[in-house]
Amino acid sequence: MADFSVGIVMGSDSDWPVMEAAYKILKDFGLSVDVQVISAHRRPDRLVEWIRESEKNGVGVFIAAAGMAAALPGVVAAHTTRPVIGVPLASGALPGVDALLSIVQMPPGVPVATVAIGGGGATNAAILAAQILALTDTALAEAVKNHKRKQAESVDRKNQLLQERLQGG
Amino acid sequence: MADFSVGIVMGSDSDWPVMEAAYKILKDFGLSVDVQVISAHRRPDRLVEWIRESEKNGVGVFIAAAGMAAALPGVVAAHTTRPVIGVPLASGALPGVDALLSIVQMPPGVPVATVAIGGGGATNAAILAAQILALTDTALAEAVKNHKRKQAESVDRKNQLLQERLQGG
Amino acid sequence: MADFSVGIVMGSDSDWPVMEAAYKILKDFGLSVDVQVISAHRRPDRLVEWIRESEKNGVGVFIAAAGMAAALPGVVAAHTTRPVIGVPLASGALPGVDALLSIVQMPPGVPVATVAIGGGGATNAAILAAQILALTDTALAEAVKNHKRKQAESVDRKNQLLQERLQGG
Amino acid sequence: MADFSVGIVMGSDSDWPVMEAAYKILKDFGLSVDVQVISAHRRPDRLVEWIRESEKNGVGVFIAAAGMAAALPGVVAAHTTRPVIGVPLASGALPGVDALLSIVQMPPGVPVATVAIGGGGATNAAILAAQILALTDTALAEAVKNHKRKQAESVDRKNQLLQERLQGG
Amino acid sequence: MADFSVGIVMGSDSDWPVMEAAYKILKDFGLSVDVQVISAHRRPDRLVEWIRESEKNGVGVFIAAAGMAAALPGVVAAHTTRPVIGVPLASGALPGVDALLSIVQMPPGVPVATVAIGGGGATNAAILAAQILALTDTALAEAVKNHKRKQAESVDRKNQLLQERLQGG
Amino acid sequence: MADFSVGIVMGSDSDWPVMEAAYKILKDFGLSVDVQVISAHRRPDRLVEWIRESEKNGVGVFIAAAGMAAALPGVVAAHTTRPVIGVPLASGALPGVDALLSIVQMPPGVPVATVAIGGGGATNAAILAAQILALTDTALAEAVKNHKRKQAESVDRKNQLLQERLQGG
Amino acid sequence: MADFSVGIVMGSDSDWPVMEAAYKILKDFGLSVDVQVISAHRRPDRLVEWIRESEKNGVGVFIAAAGMAAALPGVVAAHTTRPVIGVPLASGALPGVDALLSIVQMPPGVPVATVAIGGGGATNAAILAAQILALTDTALAEAVKNHKRKQAESVDRKNQLLQERLQGG
Amino acid sequence: MADFSVGIVMGSDSDWPVMEAAYKILKDFGLSVDVQVISAHRRPDRLVEWIRESEKNGVGVFIAAAGMAAALPGVVAAHTTRPVIGVPLASGALPGVDALLSIVQMPPGVPVATVAIGGGGATNAAILAAQILALTDTALAEAVKNHKRKQAESVDRKNQLLQERLQGG
Repeated sequence: MADFSVGIVMGSDSDWPVMEAAYKILKDFGLSVDVQVISAHRRPDRLVEWIRESEKNGVGVFIAAAGMAAALPGVVAAHTTRPVIGVPLASGALPGVDALLSIVQMPPGVPVATVAIGGGGATNAAILAAQILALTDTALAEAVKNHKRKQAESVDRKNQLLQERLQGG
Repeated sequence: MADFSVGIVMGSDSDWPVMEAAYKILKDFGLSVDVQVISAHRRPDRLVEWIRESEKNGVGVFIAAAGMAAALPGVVAAHTTRPVIGVPLASGALPGVDALLSIVQMPPGVPVATVAIGGGGATNAAILAAQILALTDTALAEAVKNHKRKQAESVDRKNQLLQERLQGG
Repeated sequence: MADFSVGIVMGSDSDWPVMEAAYKILKDFGLSVDVQVISAHRRPDRLVEWIRESEKNGVGVFIAAAGMAAALPGVVAAHTTRPVIGVPLASGALPGVDALLSIVQMPPGVPVATVAIGGGGATNAAILAAQILALTDTALAEAVKNHKRKQAESVDRKNQLLQERLQGG
Repeated sequence: MADFSVGIVMGSDSDWPVMEAAYKILKDFGLSVDVQVISAHRRPDRLVEWIRESEKNGVGVFIAAAGMAAALPGVVAAHTTRPVIGVPLASGALPGVDALLSIVQMPPGVPVATVAIGGGGATNAAILAAQILALTDTALAEAVKNHKRKQAESVDRKNQLLQERLQGG
Repeated sequence: MADFSVGIVMGSDSDWPVMEAAYKILKDFGLSVDVQVISAHRRPDRLVEWIRESEKNGVGVFIAAAGMAAALPGVVAAHTTRPVIGVPLASGALPGVDALLSIVQMPPGVPVATVAIGGGGATNAAILAAQILALTDTALAEAVKNHKRKQAESVDRKNQLLQERLQGG
Repeated sequence: MADFSVGIVMGSDSDWPVMEAAYKILKDFGLSVDVQVISAHRRPDRLVEWIRESEKNGVGVFIAAAGMAAALPGVVAAHTTRPVIGVPLASGALPGVDALLSIVQMPPGVPVATVAIGGGGATNAAILAAQILALTDTALAEAVKNHKRKQAESVDRKNQLLQERLQGG
Repeated sequence: MADFSVGIVMGSDSDWPVMEAAYKILKDFGLSVDVQVISAHRRPDRLVEWIRESEKNGVGVFIAAAGMAAALPGVVAAHTTRPVIGVPLASGALPGVDALLSIVQMPPGVPVATVAIGGGGATNAAILAAQILALTDTALAEAVKNHKRKQAESVDRKNQLLQERLQGG
Repeated sequence: MADFSVGIVMGSDSDWPVMEAAYKILKDFGLSVDVQVISAHRRPDRLVEWIRESEKNGVGVFIAAAGMAAALPGVVAAHTTRPVIGVPLASGALPGVDALLSIVQMPPGVPVATVAIGGGGATNAAILAAQILALTDTALAEAVKNHKRKQAESVDRKNQLLQERLQGG
């Protein structure tokens, strides 16, 4: 088993500046990624079609991002048994709380793995997808561990800079 | 033109005790009503099928009620151009705020006419549906006006009782 | 039956930049639209007068937009049995949550069809009004369907652009 | 100048168990009180009529209590320049936050003096009304001061009881 | 009886740009106004002293404005039986919700007449103070009514401008 | 690759009545499950130890449930690169909103797959874990699909009962 | 230095059932504790008097508990430079969010060490007070460590019971 | 006993512009301060190590600042019995409410002394730390009192300026 890819779907092309981070991280992990703009509310039939094609094409994990009454992740989860990660986005008048509740409060039986609102959530959706696929791919598992290690080192470097600055000051 | 009926759909049969009020009001107005339990997340294909059948069968207004990540009203609105009324229900840990935001914060182009959370919303969904259909049916328009008049009289009667009680006391 | 027009009322002229979108969509649908600035709190008598005139002049659907303690849509609904659509606007210190709750949480018997906060809500109020009046007018029904179709195509085009960009990149 | 009375209006007779406290406090202060159940949404014309009669009959302060989309206090304030006190009540699905925002977030020019949600608010509405009328009536001013003094003494007595209990334990 | 003045107190001089509107409206009504910056948390003793002096000097209504954990209005209310109006201000990280709840949720016995968050609240605090003092002063009562009338006329003028624009367009 | 098990950890044994549902679903799927009560705040060292042992013992997915300042899921995520599912629980004064935000708002680099508050979330955590492990196990993938199918059939049966009731009534 | 005691003050005697836990923990640590019911809003002068006496009598840490517009902790902090711990209580219509914001959002210069809403907060206020005084008292420092150790052991025991139950089942 | 220092830890170096205020105040009080950037989620092992070293090096009070799912203060509290002050920061989509709840809602037994969101909280964290250490150091106690006195004088000066401006105007 292996060779799963990732499918990213957004409700609007205005979500791309936020979601591009997820795309890049997944590509850096060497994963195959399909990105689509398909609104759950404006192109519901195309969405279902794409989910079915994606399952056949080996998408192992879906990432769905949407704002406001963010039905998209839940609709994807309704049509697949592959893990679905939901990214709530801040759009409209409220700071993403509407999208968060619309994504995370799924009824029993149809889970969506929800991450943080906005850019941090986009990044984490990609890492979570990689963590999931890493269960089927030892090289990827190693890459995910390295990524985490580098992150830790980056925190240490920033701390080091602060220490120098405080000594210097 | 005329002879439209109303289609009510709920995400779960546990919503029926709240939504029965809407059903009864619509029947009292002499309207034809179809009630269904079809979860947007657990029976998405059946839901689309039902919406299409309903449109053909003359459903003029849809009422969709759901709790938590309440995608149901929005999914109905995605598949029809008939007016869709959404009733947010309180279920799960939060007092219906999740359902309210999941229903009312629809993206531009796909409106859902949202009413109050819970029982009051169910009642109002029925009256709103009757008000909409009353534009196509003079007798119904008259019935809706009578209903409003009776309501006003009921407030007056309750006030009268309070006055008597305060005089008596 | 037919030939209904739409009445739009706002609490303040500062709401016009948001509500103009609703006006334009309705005009594009070929509907007759009356727009008024009448505050429910500062011109209550004029408001009632206007609602009565509007009913006589064939207003089939009211759209009422207001911010903060947004009583306007509810007051309109108190004085008519025609469908009333409420648009909560973000004004004052809070991001429109006050207006949303003031509009959507109507007591049983006096429904207001509430849409999303702000600009998206203004757009959807117009489309919902058109959907309602489309029940009385087959040509309008066709126009509403076309509008929905174009919207879907626009999403597809944006997706197409993203695909080209990702291929090209 | 003097001899003002207080007008209390509630949106529903179900608000009486909470608002009776306000009525009793005002009567204890020897004030003349008129209590009415008049829904702003179901009996708007009667409400305006009552406000006008009340002004003529010497109502110096209005107390208006309502739940959910609590338009009542604001509508009273729209029709009078006498001070209006608003009491937000918890009814429906939310714990009174909807009523609080619907009452307190009034637009510039039409103030409502808002007090706490529910029973504590009812009590305070009465005391605030008495404080306002006390500016026109020295005997009432004295009574209001006595009431405050007794309250302080009651806190002291409760503290005394706790001290005895802790000594005894 | 009569000749009451108004005392305005703010927690910080950074509140002045918002509260100046209240000061100006009260001066326009011909009222005598004392404005002070006295933090309830940083100058508690001076605050109590000022409240006592103010009562003696004929302050009939207090207006207290503060942000965050806005204790100021409640502390004023603790030390006087004159009506106290509280203006919640947005300062710090939250949009004034903290100040609103800190001011409006007073315990039974110690009312604070709370108005809207921020600038609209400042304006309304002044008008409410004038409405209260108008009970003791017929000329002021007339001035308050005129102010309300002008406001209504201003809405009408703005509506007129919109009508001309829409005709012209 | 395969033969992964699931590790469930709760902050308190009072969480067990809610989390038992997750345990049972996973056992029904034939998965090996380790359940532990280890508070992140009261037994931090033991928690880290358990995470390390679990990784070695083949835990493929962690489920962490906690209420209030629910640090547990994030702390697990800090110590592993295996997918971590977080279940926010309602405990203490707030209805689980504190736990939801404490779990879902993870910083970039350390994802927690958050599900709904409370019992529905517990159920969905188990199904999500099974969906993830199903990528490594074809039999499990089939079982997950069957589970989804049965759920859909259960909705249909409930709908059928409602239809019979409405016909009968 | 040493021999500091703890002063607990509550806004109402109805807070005692929650705050008794704090009293008992502090007594178990062998600390001297003074408990008072003094409302910041109803007995402001007595409160200031008590704070001054307490400082003289060696109170090293104040614990102040209140609900709704919980000014009490902030007023204590205004009058002392000893550390003040604030416990927000759920009373009135809202679940303690009003008290939390009224206590935690203190302006710069007057800190209140805020703990969780309700019973858990009461317990933690006592432990925090002991942790603070432990800096001046080595025996108390040892007692605080023991308390933490026992807590950890209690979690382990509960986990052990669950393991036995799951083995047995 | 005495000679305690303060340990400040932040989740990210982007928190430094806010937390520098705390550092400066503590240095102005003549205290020894160690500042570190150590993410609870990205460098959990280093964090524990630092806490243990800090305790040995005489850190008497910890200040921990973090945004979003702010686990850092709670994790510090899990590993020490020294008082821990938590500063919630606004980062990500929400205005710091997530961090506030993640820090303040600690389970019984592991208190975190929470202060206001953002900059005001940073200032107050420093003053609270000084107040705590002042129990062990009479000179510091005097310095803390002076700081409070100067603050009061600064409010008076600002009031004086406003008075002059209003006289002058």
